[in-house]
Parts: sequence; C-alpha cells; structure tokens
Amino acid sequence: MARIVVALGGNALSLDGKASASDQQAVASQTVAELIKLIQAGHDLVVVHGNGPQIGNIILHEEAINTEKVPTMPVDTCGAMSQGQIGYWLQKAFYNQFYQLGINRPVASIVTQVLVDQNDPAFQNPSKPIGPFYTEAEAKELAATKGITVKEDSGRGWRKVIPSPRPIHIVESEFIKLALKKHAILVAAGGGGIPVSYQNGQLSGLEAVIDKDFAAAKLADIIKADTLLILTAVESVKINFGQPDEQSLTKISTKQAAEYIQNNQFGAGSMLPKVEAALQFIGSNKKRRTIITTPQAALAGLKGQAGTTIVL
Amino acid sequence: MARIVVALGGNALSLDGKASASDQQAVASQTVAELIKLIQAGHDLVVVHGNGPQIGNIILHEEAINTEKVPTMPVDTCGAMSQGQIGYWLQKAFYNQFYQLGINRPVASIVTQVLVDQNDPAFQNPSKPIGPFYTEAEAKELAATKGITVKEDSGRGWRKVIPSPRPIHIVESEFIKLALKKHAILVAAGGGGIPVSYQNGQLSGLEAVIDKDFAAAKLADIIKADTLLILTAVESVKINFGQPDEQSLTKISTKQAAEYIQNNQFGAGSMLPKVEAALQFIGSNKKRRTIITTPQAALAGLKGQAGTTIVL
Repeated sequence: MARIVVALGGNALSLDGKASASDQQAVASQTVAELIKLIQAGHDLVVVHGNGPQIGNIILHEEAINTEKVPTMPVDTCGAMSQGQIGYWLQKAFYNQFYQLGINRPVASIVTQVLVDQNDPAFQNPSKPIGPFYTEAEAKELAATKGITVKEDSGRGWRKVIPSPRPIHIVESEFIKLALKKHAILVAAGGGGIPVSYQNGQLSGLEAVIDKDFAAAKLADIIKADTLLILTAVESVKINFGQPDEQSLTKISTKQAAEYIQNNQFGAGSMLPKVEAALQFIGSNKKRRTIITTPQAALAGLKGQAGTTIVL
Repeated sequence: MARIVVALGGNALSLDGKASASDQQAVASQTVAELIKLIQAGHDLVVVHGNGPQIGNIILHEEAINTEKVPTMPVDTCGAMSQGQIGYWLQKAFYNQFYQLGINRPVASIVTQVLVDQNDPAFQNPSKPIGPFYTEAEAKELAATKGITVKEDSGRGWRKVIPSPRPIHIVESEFIKLALKKHAILVAAGGGGIPVSYQNGQLSGLEAVIDKDFAAAKLADIIKADTLLILTAVESVKINFGQPDEQSLTKISTKQAAEYIQNNQFGAGSMLPKVEAALQFIGSNKKRRTIITTPQAALAGLKGQAGTTIVL
C-alpha cells in the first residue's frame, strides 16, 4: 500500500486528431480504468494530468475574440480553465467506474496553483510553444510590436513561446494533505498547475506553463509519497534509442540515470524531463521510487514486472 | 460559530462591462475580503459562486472556432472550465488575504458535478438564454436546422435557451463533507455545478445550467449547514417593490415568504429563485435560516443587524 502521485501524459487523455469532448472523455475513461486497478490494489492516488492539447485549444478559442466585453483570458486563467475541464472528465470517469465496481471512495479535482521563482532562468529563455501558428513574417511583426518571443516550432510554423519555470511549491498542498488523510482520490496540479509567483507579497498569475512531471515530482515530495508513477506512451525508458544496441531499462539507480542524462540519452521534449523529475523526487531518499511506463502497464510496473523503475 | 453555505451572485464577481481577468479578479478580491470577516468570526464556509457572465464569454469563445482539431466544447464542459477559472480567482484572493492577515486555513476549489433528473419538466421548457445573440431570422433558421430552442432575450436580440433543471444531489458531497470536517474553506458547485444525470447507470453531462441558489440550497441541506447566506446586489428583500408602500423585510417566516411568492412579490429572474431556495433549504427545520443581503452587509446579516432573515 503506497501513496502514489501519478503523472498522466497527454496520450492518456486525448488521441491525436480526436479532440471533441466525447472523444477525449472516452480516452480519459480508459486511463481511469487502469488507475482504478491501482486503487483496488490498495494504493492512494493523486493524479497530475498534462494539458498541452487542451490549453492549446482553449487559447486558440480565447484569442479568436478579444473585445472589451468578451476579452481573451490570460494564460494562467486558461490553465485554470483546463483544470476544470480535464478534472471534470477524469472525476466523472472515476465516479462512473466506481459505481459499477461497487467502490466507495470520494474523488475530487482540486484547482491548484503552483509557485515558481520569478528569478527562474526560464523567464530569460521562453521555450514552450503555445497558441496559434503564424507565418515567419507575422511572427516577427508580433515580436516587434507586442514584445513577445516567437520561435519556429518543429517545421509546423512560428509560434509564441512562453517560459517553463520549475515548481518550488504547491500552494494548495495543505489542503491536498488533509484530503489524503481521508483517503480521497485527488486530481491536482493539472497541466503542471496554475503558475503563480509572489509579487509584493501577493500571489500573482504568470504567463508561463509548468512541466507536469516536475509539478508531480514536487507534489510527491511535499505530500511524502512513496512512488512517483509517470505514465506515458512508451512501456519503458530506452537507451541508444533507434540504434542497433537499443536497450530497455528495467531498474536503474539515480546515479546511472544521471549518467545517461549526461550522455544525452534522453530527448529534451520527451523522456529527459521525466527522468529529471524522477531524480528530483528521489533525491537521496532510499524509500522513494519513480516508475515510468504506460497506463496499461501501471499495475505491473508497481510490482516491478514492467516499465522502468528508478531508485537511489 | 455556524457552518455556512454562501451563494455569491454575479455582482460579487464581475462589474458590468469590466470583463477582463484583472478587473474580475479585483472584484472577486473585494468579495473575498467580506467573506474573510465571516471566517474571522469563527464560521466555516462553502462558497457557491454564479458564472453567468463567465460561462457566457467562454461559450462565445468556444463557438468562435469549431473545427475537427479545435472543436467547440459542450455546455457542461464549459461550466467545468468556468469553475476552474472563477475558483482560481477566488482561492488566490483567499490565500493572499490570509497571508496578510496571518490566517492559516486551507482553501480549495472543488470541481463539482450536480445531479439533476432527466424527467425534470425544465427539459420540456428550456428557459435560460445562453451564448451569442442572433437576429430573429438567424435564430429561426437555427431552430429549424439544428433543433435548438430560441427566444427573444429582453429586447437585446434572439438567443438559444437551454433547460434549467433543479438539483437533486451534489456528486462530490462526500468529499466536501470530509474537507469541512478539517475546517477547510471550500469553493464548490460553481455556476450551480456541472449538470449531469444518470443515463444507463452512468453520469452524463447535459446541455443545461443549474441555478446557483438552488444548488447552494441543496448543498447546504446535504452538508447540514445551519445557514444559507445568499449575497446579491440588494441589501434586503423588498415587497411592493417600486411602489409607494415599498417595504424592506428584516425577518420573515417561511410561511410569510410563501405567501409573498403567491402574491407575485418577487421577480422571476432575480429575487424569486433566492426566496424559493431559502424555503427549500429551511424546509421544516427550526435550526436553519437563510439570509439574503449584500457581501458588504454579510457579517451584520449573520448577527441579524442587516439584510433579510428567513426562518421557519
């Protein structure tokens, strides 16, 4: 029986090109079915979901109208909206499947702010593409007139980029702790949390996005979870990816993981932040572990029969 | 020391014509300052906010783009988005003011589904205007081609109308109860809650909106609150409104209130649902009361020094 923070990747929520509310809820429901197996095995869960496609679409909608009476909401508020949206889909799936299985556990999604440091170097180097695509000319015009940073995004066009600072605290963590004492199933820090920092002693929303794996690692640390379970599209972490000597990792130490990072074994936008989050969570704590695998292999992963386990 | 469910009217969140995120947060912050006086007086609070202007704008944005990749979200999901949005604004204001005042209480907004009956007569008589305005011709074309119901809205144009059924249960009430045991301050059932009903034994989202005063009354009943505090734009309930013999009500019985309702003393879209919600909450319970007043008079209202108190 463990206290587990689950970080749910984008693929656990939406299928490429299937963006309707009903399509996304169908995928969420399949993911929840896998998570319920962990609950049936006696574990307590906090679910931290990604929100890339969802906040992307919210921003596109918000930017489509920007008048005095119907203004575009800023990115922090859009993140909060995505927490409501995805939290609803996930918790409805939990209640429905609990009902069918005769499980009686309270479930709730918690709107969650995540504190970052205004001096985080990410603010000097915005890196996370967000919102609509532009032509190079349009993008450079926007950069010049609106002072935003733009970058070419993977051959698909130009986009605004915003900072992705590291989480330093979970604002609602005291609430989350008290709910966990009662063995509630929680959805929290969705999309990495709503980014806030202290400005003149007051929490203020920021135009930024926080990596959900780092937010999950921070939350797992604060609530003293035993396990950080990172669920993604691949069954396990690989080294020498795509080479003849490609190898799946079953169990590695944080020291080995750090060496693989140094040897650039992991993709910057994909496996690297997950392994970094794993190291951050484990730190020097012998009782902690991170497992990286798919939703379908999550239960086997907890038993050490699937996925990649990282320990001290 | 009471357990209070506060129903926050639209004016407690947004000022007419000031719809930007920062303007709305400034108003939310003033409202929260009034609510904190109740907490300082020793009361436990669950805040149920309205979402009329906010979900209206979310729907306008959502309907502005509707493609396969960027589809319009349905009304239930838009309601969930508004819970994230407004919940974030309110809880940030609570944390910031608690910090300044040295108050240490956990606060969280809970994404909340509210169960309604599919056979509620409201589904036969959609009444709640929502979304963009149309010309009469456009509206009738939409009604004919899309099977939606349209109505003329207060001389401002034609709009789609959707059902406003009565709440019969709060899906997350067990979670809310356990958080209240720990004296957490909660924001819940925002916008009246996300409307769901059982279809083939499964909770399904509905194209409907639930009146937030009725949702607050239902929640107050389930969590055994002592007080339903309905905060709105007027200091007290009036009879013979706008007549020479206009009279403010200070304390009335549910029986008197029911008589005033029968005599059409209260406006259908304004005071009537509040007084009806009051009666529903109090029922035949001598220990329950409803107070209707402004946010500014809330603390005085609890002491019987302002507003309208309704008791058995």
